[in-house]
Amino acid sequence: MNINIICIGKIKDKYINDGIAEFSKRMTSFVSLNIIELKEYNKEDNINISIEKESLEILKQISKSNSYNILLDLEGKEINSENMSKYIENLKNIGISSINFIIGGSNGVSKNVKNSVDMKLKFSHFTFPHQLMRLILLEQVYRWFAISNNIKYHK
Amino acid sequence: MNINIICIGKIKDKYINDGIAEFSKRMTSFVSLNIIELKEYNKEDNINISIEKESLEILKQISKSNSYNILLDLEGKEINSENMSKYIENLKNIGISSINFIIGGSNGVSKNVKNSVDMKLKFSHFTFPHQLMRLILLEQVYRWFAISNNIKYHK
Repeated sequence: MNINIICIGKIKDKYINDGIAEFSKRMTSFVSLNIIELKEYNKEDNINISIEKESLEILKQISKSNSYNILLDLEGKEINSENMSKYIENLKNIGISSINFIIGGSNGVSKNVKNSVDMKLKFSHFTFPHQLMRLILLEQVYRWFAISNNIKYHK
Repeated sequence: MNINIICIGKIKDKYINDGIAEFSKRMTSFVSLNIIELKEYNKEDNINISIEKESLEILKQISKSNSYNILLDLEGKEINSENMSKYIENLKNIGISSINFIIGGSNGVSKNVKNSVDMKLKFSHFTFPHQLMRLILLEQVYRWFAISNNIKYHK
């Protein structure tokens, strides 16, 4: 399975990069991982312009590939780790070979992005920095594949 | 406000320790933070014995102090970051000067612990490693105090 993480901006904190590197390495036996960092536009005066510009870049990535698109969204579906593992297994079984996980920037994404994805997934009702969210997502992706591959992995 | 993180075992991953150090440092202007690492008993043959032994240590910590006890629990309350910030402000206003946040070990905690706390708080329907959970919790504690202190802090 190809897993693409579509996200905004470069990671500034070393500890986040180190954590991402750790899970990226562990994942290599299950998936082909690709982290696509798009330009961050948070320097714009108007937040809506930032959102539109970043969302446009996300939409370009979505339309480029024939992937299944999952947006991390506060209003998304709540699924536990075991069921998310099964969900991805099902996608594989119906012939999907590539999944895009999309993490919006600090101001979120446009309605257009929300309407263009195949699934919206809620991680928490708490707000996290989008950069830390990248690490949290990678841990879960690793967990989902560890479950379906019967790899013992701690809680 | 005194914030005590009651948790199980030493952190093994450097990136988690680095992240915890980062938020601990940022928090010093708002709170007096104390991380209480209890012994991990996951080497026991019987999972229930591990849970009971770790839970006993947690209960000792709870009974020691006059703190408000919040357990991280999959069946806990779902509150967003803004409301959690207000919740803590309210605790302060009614004279509470110390909060214990309790993160169980990889096998969870006993019913006795669940019944002894003042509040159960849900972070996510996903399962996270309890060590990574410590970093995720510290980020949120920082966020809640940043909100109530009007500190600009990114999403």
